[in-house]
Parts: sequence; structure tokens; C-alpha cells
Amino acid sequence: MRDFKIAPSILSADFARLGEEVHSVLAAGADIVHFDVMDNHYVPNLTIGPLVCEALRKNGVKADIDVHLMVKPVDRLIPDFAKAGATYITFHPEASEHVDRSLSLIKDSGCRCGLVFNPATPLGYLDYVMDKVDMILIMSVNPGFGGQSFIRSALDKLRAVRARIDASGRPIRLEIDGGVKIDNIREIAAAGADTFVAGSAIFGTPDYRATIQKMREELAKA
Amino acid sequence: MRDFKIAPSILSADFARLGEEVHSVLAAGADIVHFDVMDNHYVPNLTIGPLVCEALRKNGVKADIDVHLMVKPVDRLIPDFAKAGATYITFHPEASEHVDRSLSLIKDSGCRCGLVFNPATPLGYLDYVMDKVDMILIMSVNPGFGGQSFIRSALDKLRAVRARIDASGRPIRLEIDGGVKIDNIREIAAAGADTFVAGSAIFGTPDYRATIQKMREELAKA
Amino acid sequence: MRDFKIAPSILSADFARLGEEVHSVLAAGADIVHFDVMDNHYVPNLTIGPLVCEALRKNGVKADIDVHLMVKPVDRLIPDFAKAGATYITFHPEASEHVDRSLSLIKDSGCRCGLVFNPATPLGYLDYVMDKVDMILIMSVNPGFGGQSFIRSALDKLRAVRARIDASGRPIRLEIDGGVKIDNIREIAAAGADTFVAGSAIFGTPDYRATIQKMREELAKA
Amino acid sequence: MRDFKIAPSILSADFARLGEEVHSVLAAGADIVHFDVMDNHYVPNLTIGPLVCEALRKNGVKADIDVHLMVKPVDRLIPDFAKAGATYITFHPEASEHVDRSLSLIKDSGCRCGLVFNPATPLGYLDYVMDKVDMILIMSVNPGFGGQSFIRSALDKLRAVRARIDASGRPIRLEIDGGVKIDNIREIAAAGADTFVAGSAIFGTPDYRATIQKMREELAKA
Amino acid sequence: MRDFKIAPSILSADFARLGEEVHSVLAAGADIVHFDVMDNHYVPNLTIGPLVCEALRKNGVKADIDVHLMVKPVDRLIPDFAKAGATYITFHPEASEHVDRSLSLIKDSGCRCGLVFNPATPLGYLDYVMDKVDMILIMSVNPGFGGQSFIRSALDKLRAVRARIDASGRPIRLEIDGGVKIDNIREIAAAGADTFVAGSAIFGTPDYRATIQKMREELAKA
Amino acid sequence: MRDFKIAPSILSADFARLGEEVHSVLAAGADIVHFDVMDNHYVPNLTIGPLVCEALRKNGVKADIDVHLMVKPVDRLIPDFAKAGATYITFHPEASEHVDRSLSLIKDSGCRCGLVFNPATPLGYLDYVMDKVDMILIMSVNPGFGGQSFIRSALDKLRAVRARIDASGRPIRLEIDGGVKIDNIREIAAAGADTFVAGSAIFGTPDYRATIQKMREELAKA
Repeated sequence: MRDFKIAPSILSADFARLGEEVHSVLAAGADIVHFDVMDNHYVPNLTIGPLVCEALRKNGVKADIDVHLMVKPVDRLIPDFAKAGATYITFHPEASEHVDRSLSLIKDSGCRCGLVFNPATPLGYLDYVMDKVDMILIMSVNPGFGGQSFIRSALDKLRAVRARIDASGRPIRLEIDGGVKIDNIREIAAAGADTFVAGSAIFGTPDYRATIQKMREELAKA
Repeated sequence: MRDFKIAPSILSADFARLGEEVHSVLAAGADIVHFDVMDNHYVPNLTIGPLVCEALRKNGVKADIDVHLMVKPVDRLIPDFAKAGATYITFHPEASEHVDRSLSLIKDSGCRCGLVFNPATPLGYLDYVMDKVDMILIMSVNPGFGGQSFIRSALDKLRAVRARIDASGRPIRLEIDGGVKIDNIREIAAAGADTFVAGSAIFGTPDYRATIQKMREELAKA
Repeated sequence: MRDFKIAPSILSADFARLGEEVHSVLAAGADIVHFDVMDNHYVPNLTIGPLVCEALRKNGVKADIDVHLMVKPVDRLIPDFAKAGATYITFHPEASEHVDRSLSLIKDSGCRCGLVFNPATPLGYLDYVMDKVDMILIMSVNPGFGGQSFIRSALDKLRAVRARIDASGRPIRLEIDGGVKIDNIREIAAAGADTFVAGSAIFGTPDYRATIQKMREELAKA
Repeated sequence: MRDFKIAPSILSADFARLGEEVHSVLAAGADIVHFDVMDNHYVPNLTIGPLVCEALRKNGVKADIDVHLMVKPVDRLIPDFAKAGATYITFHPEASEHVDRSLSLIKDSGCRCGLVFNPATPLGYLDYVMDKVDMILIMSVNPGFGGQSFIRSALDKLRAVRARIDASGRPIRLEIDGGVKIDNIREIAAAGADTFVAGSAIFGTPDYRATIQKMREELAKA
Repeated sequence: MRDFKIAPSILSADFARLGEEVHSVLAAGADIVHFDVMDNHYVPNLTIGPLVCEALRKNGVKADIDVHLMVKPVDRLIPDFAKAGATYITFHPEASEHVDRSLSLIKDSGCRCGLVFNPATPLGYLDYVMDKVDMILIMSVNPGFGGQSFIRSALDKLRAVRARIDASGRPIRLEIDGGVKIDNIREIAAAGADTFVAGSAIFGTPDYRATIQKMREELAKA
Repeated sequence: MRDFKIAPSILSADFARLGEEVHSVLAAGADIVHFDVMDNHYVPNLTIGPLVCEALRKNGVKADIDVHLMVKPVDRLIPDFAKAGATYITFHPEASEHVDRSLSLIKDSGCRCGLVFNPATPLGYLDYVMDKVDMILIMSVNPGFGGQSFIRSALDKLRAVRARIDASGRPIRLEIDGGVKIDNIREIAAAGADTFVAGSAIFGTPDYRATIQKMREELAKA
């Protein structure tokens, strides 16, 4: 069985008491803090930057922080997030002129690196970087837009990426983001994902522990 | 005597417990919440967007929130910040193709509008909008870069803007941002400012109330 | 036999009496009005926008209008063209950061959606959207530049796309644009196209009906 | 008395029978064809380009065509519009890195050149080009956005530009665009304008001749 | 045995006496002058443009000059470099909206054309242009950044491109750039390259002739 | 009498033997090496970058090097040129979002800073930086385009800037670039300039010493 990880997206947390929210969800069993960065250029919204990441570290958060850059261009923010305490930094290959260079820049800054694939983005961008990436994030909604449900062609994409990861022999995390819920997490895991981002599906429920527990039960059946 | 307002910049607050910080500083005598939005395009940093503003309103913050957009372009974020509870929205005239339109868009969204002037930006952008703006923000440091001290040519600019405001007969706020401290606030007020942004000069001190009290004592002498 | 459609490109019509031109060509047997939108950014020309499309609908044009967006970015114009009466809206995948989102936006606006491939663009962009698109447009010249002839590698590309369409089982139109004439339309149809854009090859001839009739005769042999 | 000119904006005409519309409005007493070019970049709309201008010339339109470029950048379209038969080409100074060069490019292409001022744009851009420009266009609404009424600070701007023109001793046209109607044309002329753009105020009325006649009667009183 | 070519990159030459340097290295046995153009937009550096190329031709350089454009966009510089005496012009497919058009523009200017692949760029961009390109350049470092060593996944990419070239039956040069040295040139040639860019590996050595001679000895063993 | 300086623009030198050219022109009496940097974005040409400047220093050039950045954005190249040995670095205020910051960045890098004014650019950008700039460069042609002659409105602009400099009491150089020749240098000096850029007017003549000598004779009469 794969080592499944639950990664709550703090975009759905209460930003007025973010430290408390993050400690709560980790105490409730979450594994990774998922951190969505939008710049109003790559996507039509602006969210949070390095100083919020740094505040979490200063507040005593020890868990992995997984920074998903929905920004263009990407390189300038990498050292800032590394300094602010990021564990993973992932970006969209279309958003960098120099994908290999951006991956190296993340690694040289002491973080783990990854690529993110929009729903329609083909997998060719992986052809020559499987020896470098630590994480591959498949979007099952379009990032930066509200009110979407899980796009089912992401399941095929997960299967194709899982095959590439297994062929590589490297311990690359396969993360999924968008519309993940208790109802479909089992099917998603079966398609190959091992890391599950969930926003309101966790933060929108009254009992984080119960929700995460149900997700794990579903995963155990996968 | 002018109606002086102290506007702490929350960029210097602790983001892990932002609601608490904002309530503290307001209880300590601050008047306005200053909210700095950077997009990593107009300035080389990315900070916080509408969802953080909205979280403050949901957390019970009733004071005016004064949103300074260091973004380019500006129009797309205006309705989002209006919906998120902004009181003032100000932007840099160089960052909008259509300054008059952006000012109108802010007003039509139910907020008060203003223009921000970088240290070297000339005042001509005010020539045909004095009947529209509710606030003029003079930068006395370059926005988005750290470690700067108060640029003294801002005093001349304050005097020139004060004369324009007095000539207009309209109740336009004249705000100053950058390197404002207990030591220089009196001189700055004498040059014409009535609204004072301060970041670490307040949040970096142990006793917000004592700091704000000292600022008011200096202002009383202006 | 496939259901062949002739789609005259109105860029070659007389813009001073466009309504009359469009009614004439439809009466002469054309099926679809092809509408080329250029913004002087994605391609080095600026042509016509939504208000021209709307004028055709108000003038009583009932045929399908097939809007080819040679613009970047694409999303802002989609609702405008949907409101103006477009039937199909197609765009270039390189021109949108969020291809799946743009396709959904077109469908949610009530239109049929499609992707356009420049002569050198690989087909990978189709990998995860074959369940969404209603049309695939293969360019056999470079869009936005004059004086070009049919690029023969487009025939191979048509064959490859035809195979993908047949495998999908979905009724996706396969359109070709660039250098289509009576002389080569049969060979192009044999490679898999079912929708044929022609500009001066129709509007540059004195008798639209005779020209379209000859094209249909060639297609009947394909 | 100044030589007043009426310049109907063809954006409000019926694009399905544009030649007929333009001939009608000229026969009804209009002087100049005003031609609004938008690129969906400088303003959030896309309208019409050189091929529509060329179609009017081929259709026998002999009047001056006054092309207002709401595009960025501007230089690439200048030769195209010159070839298509433009008489005047005007642009926004913020939209060109090299204002003097763009003005020269227009003149070298055989057209008359001008600058356009958005409602909030200061007049400093005129300081060193009064010996070059043939037209100055003052916007009394924000270009590219619908549903606006005449911005009154444009009257002050007209007076300031009129003084500059008179001081220059050169025959520079002073044009106004936005919310011009029978009701206010007299006051606008009194402020210094001599060329009046009107869109739906003319094309939205049943009798173009009667409307233009009333405008001229108001102008005669100015 | 393939016809191997050594192409010293003049970025590593002494720019104060460039003519002399180029004549020296050609006299020492080099075949092609490699000319790296950076614009501080596609890559974070600015190097040299057409006027330096032209100076070499005027100085009597007769060898092929191979211009590698690390610029975005690419089309505007093509005619300038053709006029300045370039033999080959290559560019990055991500840097042009219209790859086929840019290739044609190069050929129509009288030069040979090619595509350059960054380390992570997939090979799909070759799918429909193998009948057009005269050169394919594989980057084995990220262009425009200093201090990098040979990226080994470039060997796999060379093998894949070699297979495509052999299948095409066309005489397409396969060039490699980045970290090429006497130590690894044999292995690189074995993977399929036939044209070898080297900068400081040649210009940083005291005896150009001896260095190039050693490279050729290694190549003879490939 | 002002301290006049002659600044030959090396764009007109022979780039194949640049070191020799620069030493010659300095030996012939020139004072400053003028270095024109174009990036094909701010102007439609690409010339030379930091590595050429560095080569001159390594080649023993001791004179001031005056780097004129015709690039956008400007900040990234400043430290590179400082390291490469620039004495002055000037830029266009429209090309930087943060003019005061860019000036400070130049000074903090150890160089002298300045602003450049295109022919149509108004002088307002000087209003709040007269205490910072070391040089003001007035363009009397449009930068980056060939075949232009001296634009006479530059004389008025020189007089206006001279008045500002005298009022400031600071030793700011007033440089002129574009169409400067033996014929007009006296009139230009009389209008206030003290530093004269000349390209082909020097490098295009057979005897640099004689040319510079004649320029000085004219200046002596100013």
C-alpha cells in the first residue's frame, strides 16, 4: 500500500487565526500543509505570499509545507519561499521559460521540486525531468477559478503518470488537487495518487479529525 | 488642527494570528487598517489578497480598511476587494491605462478611491481628478523593497499636494507611507500629511498603545 | 460519406456591404460563416470583433457563425462573442494559460468549442480534451500573414486527428483553413477534413454558386 | 468663428451595411468619418481594423477618415492604416514608448498625426510636440467602456489645450469624443473644441440630417 | 563517419579584439562561428546583436556564422541578422507564437533555419517541421545562466533526435551546446551529435589549435 | 565656461577591433566612452551588453564609460553593468516602475546615475529627483531608429533643464545625443549642454583627432 498523505489547502482556513487553524488540522491527522500562491497574472486571483509562510514557521508549524505556485514568471519567488520555510515548491511548466533551471533553482535553495499539470496540459513536459522532480501535481479542476467539480479525465492522467513514476524507480509523490472528497478519494487513489489536497472538504466541516479519519478509511480500501 | 489618523500597516503584524493583532492595535488607539497588496509584477514581492481582507471583516473588524494596490493592472482586483470589505482602495496611476475609469470603478463598487505617488512620480496625474479622489498617498520610500529610510523630498511633495487639496475645497485625505516614526511624524504632519502609515514602528514595539500615544503627542505639537 | 461543410471566410468579403455578401454566399450554397478575429498581438493584424458578428445576426443571418480567435489572451472575448451570436468559438491552445477552462467557458456561454493548431503545433494539446471539443481546426497556412500557399504537412496532421476523432466516437468537426481551393479540396477531404474554410477562393470569384458547386463535386469524389 | 466639423463615429453604425451608412451620414452633412480601433489590450474591446477602412475607400468614401487608435503598441498598425486610406491617425501617448517617433511615422506615411488624452491624462505630453501634431483629441469619457456620460473636467482641459494651440499659431484641430449631444455641444465648443465626435447621438436617431442640422445650430451660437 | 564540426562560441572570446580572436580560432581548425544572442527577456542576460555579426563579415570572416537566438519574440531580429551575414539562425519554439512562420521567414531571408531545445523541452515541436529545419540544437545546460555542467539527460534526447533525423532522410545538423569538453565529446558524438559548441573549453585554453586537435582525436574514436 | 566633454558613441566604431578603436578615439582627445545598450524591447534593436563593457576595462580602458540603457525593465542589468566597469548608468523614466529606486540602485552599485528624455517626454520626471541625479541626457533623435536628424525642440528642452540644474546648485552633467555635428555643436552648447555624444560624426571621419579638435574649437566660441 502506498504511503498516503492528506494535504489540507489553507486557502479554505480562517485567515484571521491561521496559526490556530493549521495546528488544529495537523493535530486532527493531516500530514502536509498545502499553500496556494496566486499572483493575479497566471490565474485571476491574488492570495498569499512568502510572509504568510514564514509566519506559520515562526508560529511553530513543523509539518511539510507544500507551496503550489500559480504565478508567472516563477523564478523570482523561489528563493523567497525557500527562506520562508517551504518544503516543496511546485510550478506550472508553461509559466517558466526554463523549466529545468527553475527545478534546479528550487533544489539548490534546499527544497523539493515539482511540476503541476493543468487539466488540458499534456504530459510531455515530464519527458526529460523524471530524474529531477520530487512531486507531480495533477489538477483536477482549473486552478484559480471557483465552483468547479472534479474533472474525470484526471483519472486517466493519474494512471499515465503513475506508470511513468513506477518506470523511473524514483520516490516521486503524485498529488491531486481539485474536488477531492470522501466520496471519490478511493477511486482517485486507485488511479495512482498518493497525496490528496482538500480545502473546504476539510476546513468546511465542523470536525476536522472525523473528516480526515473518513478519508483514511476510504484510502485503506483503495 | 487637522483630524490626524494613525494607520498601522498589517504587513508587519503576525500573520499567524492576524485577527488578534488587528483588534489589539485598534484597541490601542489606531484608526485605520492599512493593507498592502503586492503582486510580484508591479513590485518584486507578493503579499496578501482579498481573502485576507474578507477574513478580517468576518472576524469582526469594523475600522476602515485602506487597501493600497501595488499591482499592475489594477482593475480586476477592485470588485474583489470591494466585496471583501475594503473602505479605501488606492492605486498607482502608472499601473492603469485608464486612471479615471479605475477611480470610477472603485467608487461604483461602493469604496472611496485614491492615487498613490512613488517618490519620483510627478504630481501631474492629479490635474484632472481632484474632483474625484478621496485620498492621496505619498510614498516616502520605494514600495516593495525593504530596508529604506524616509526620503526627504517627500516633504516638498506633501506641501505641494496640501496646497492642491486646500485649493480644491474637498475633504481629501493626505496619507504618507514609508519610514514614519515618532521622531519625524511631527515634521511630516507640518508638511501637510493627515494620515500616517506605520509598520514595524508600531508592530515592532512591545506596547502598541504607548507607541501610538507618543505619535499623537508629537502630532499635537505640529 | 462525411457531412461536408463549406465555410467562406468573410475576411475576403466586401466589408462595406457585409450583410449582402453573407446572404449571397449562403444563398449560393455555403453552410457556415467563418469569422476571423485578429488582435495585433497573437498575430500581426487587427480585423473585426464582436460588434460585426452582432450586426450579422441583426441583419438576419441564421447560419452557424464559426469564430476563430487569433487573439491572446482569449477568455475576455468569449462572453462578448457568445452574446453577439457566435455558434462555434475556437482558439489556439498556446494563447490560453488555462485551455480546459477556456473550453468550459465557451460551452457555459452556450457555444460549441474548439482548438486550432498552427502548422508546427504538435497534437498533444488534444490528449485530455477529446471529450470536450466540438471542432478541431488545422491551419494549413500560418494565420495572420498574407501570400501563403497550402502547407502539405497539414495532410499528415489531418490523418492523425481523424484517427483521434474516430477513436473518440464523438461528432467532432475537423476543419481546415489555408490555401483550400477547387484543385486540392478532394485530397484534403481524403485526409480527413469535413469542414473547409475558403476566402478569396470563393469571394474572389464572380459566381459564388458556381464555385461552391465545383467544390462539392470534388468532395463527392473524395 | 471656428471651422466646426461633425465627425460621426461609425462604431454606432450598422456594420452589415456600413458603406450605405457612411454615405448617408456624409450626405446628411457630416464632415469626417471617425473610426475607432480597439485591440482588447489597450482597452477591453476589439472593434475593427485596416481592412474595414480600406473597404470604405473602395466603396467610394472620399471624406476625411479620422482613425483613433486605442491600441498598444501603436507603431505596427500605422503603415497599414495609411495604406488603407486613413487621413488622420491619432494615438494615446501612454501607449507608445516613442511618441515623437510614432508621430513622425504617421507623417512619413502621408497622414496627419495627433495625440489623444484620456480623462485623467495630464497635458505635459504636448510640451515638445506642438510643432508636429495636426490634431489633439480630448476624451470626455473613458475609451472602450460603455454607458458613460460626459466628464465635465474635460471642459477645463479643452480650455487649456485651446490656449496652447492659439499660442502655437498652428492650425491644430481640437477634437472632443464622449457624450457629445445637441444639449451640450454649444458649451463644449465654447470651451475650445472645433471637431465633435458623436456616435449614437447621430446614428441612434432616425433622421441624421435633422440631428446634424440641430448640432450646427447650437454651434452657431457658441 | 559523420562530418563533425567544431563551433566555438564567441561569448568566451575577448570582445576588445574580436576579429582577431575569430580569425585565430578558425585558423586553428574551427569550422563554424557560434553566435549567442540574449535579450534580457527570454534569458536574464543581454549579449550582442546584429551589428557585431556584421562587423565580423566586414572584417573578412568567411566561415559559417551560426546565430542562436535566445530572445522573445524572435521574428523582428531575423531580417537584421540575415542582412548582417548570418548563415544559420536558430530559435526556441516556446519563444515564437508561429514556429512554422519563423522558420519560413529565416529561409526566405536566405539563411538556414533551426530549432533549439531547452533541457526540459519535449521533442513534439519537431513533429511537423522535419521537412523544414536545417539544424536542431540540443541544450545540455540552461541557456543564459552561468556555472552549469553537462546535463546527462541530453544524451537520451540526442539519441531520440538522431533517430528522427535518420528517418527524415534529410541532411539536418544535430548540434549540442553546454558543457562540451575534450573529456565528454566522444560520448556526445556517440549519442548522435555532429556539431559541437564550446566556449571557454576552447577560448579559455592557451593553444586553440591543440585543443581543437584533441577534440577531433576524440571524435575520430566515436 | 563650462567643462565640455566629448563622448563618442561606440555603436559607430568597428566592433571587430573595438579595443583599438576606443584607445584611438581617447588618444585623439575624447573624454568619455558612450555605450548604447538596446534590448529589442524598449527600442527595436539589440546591441551590446555588459560583457562588451567588461572587455573594454580588461583591455585597459581607463576613461569614464557612460552606459545609456535603452531597455525595459532596467533594474536587472544595473548590477551587471556596475560589475562590468560602468561609470555612469542612465535610463528612461518610462522604462522603470520605480524611478527613484532604480537611481538608488545605480548609486548603491557604485556608479553615477541619470535619466534620459526622449524627444517628446516632458520634464516632470525631474521634479523630485534633482537631488539624486548626476547626469541628464536629452535625446535629440528618437533612440533606436536610424537615419534621423537633430530635432530642434531639443534646444528648448536643454534650456529648461539648464535652468533646473543651475537652480539645484548641483554638478549635474547635461548630455545631448542625436545628430550632433561640428556644424551645430556650438548652438547646442549655447542652449546649455556640456556633454556631447557623437557617433558617425567622429567614427565616420578618417582623422578622429582633427574632428574632435574642430568640435572643441566650436565649443570654445559658445
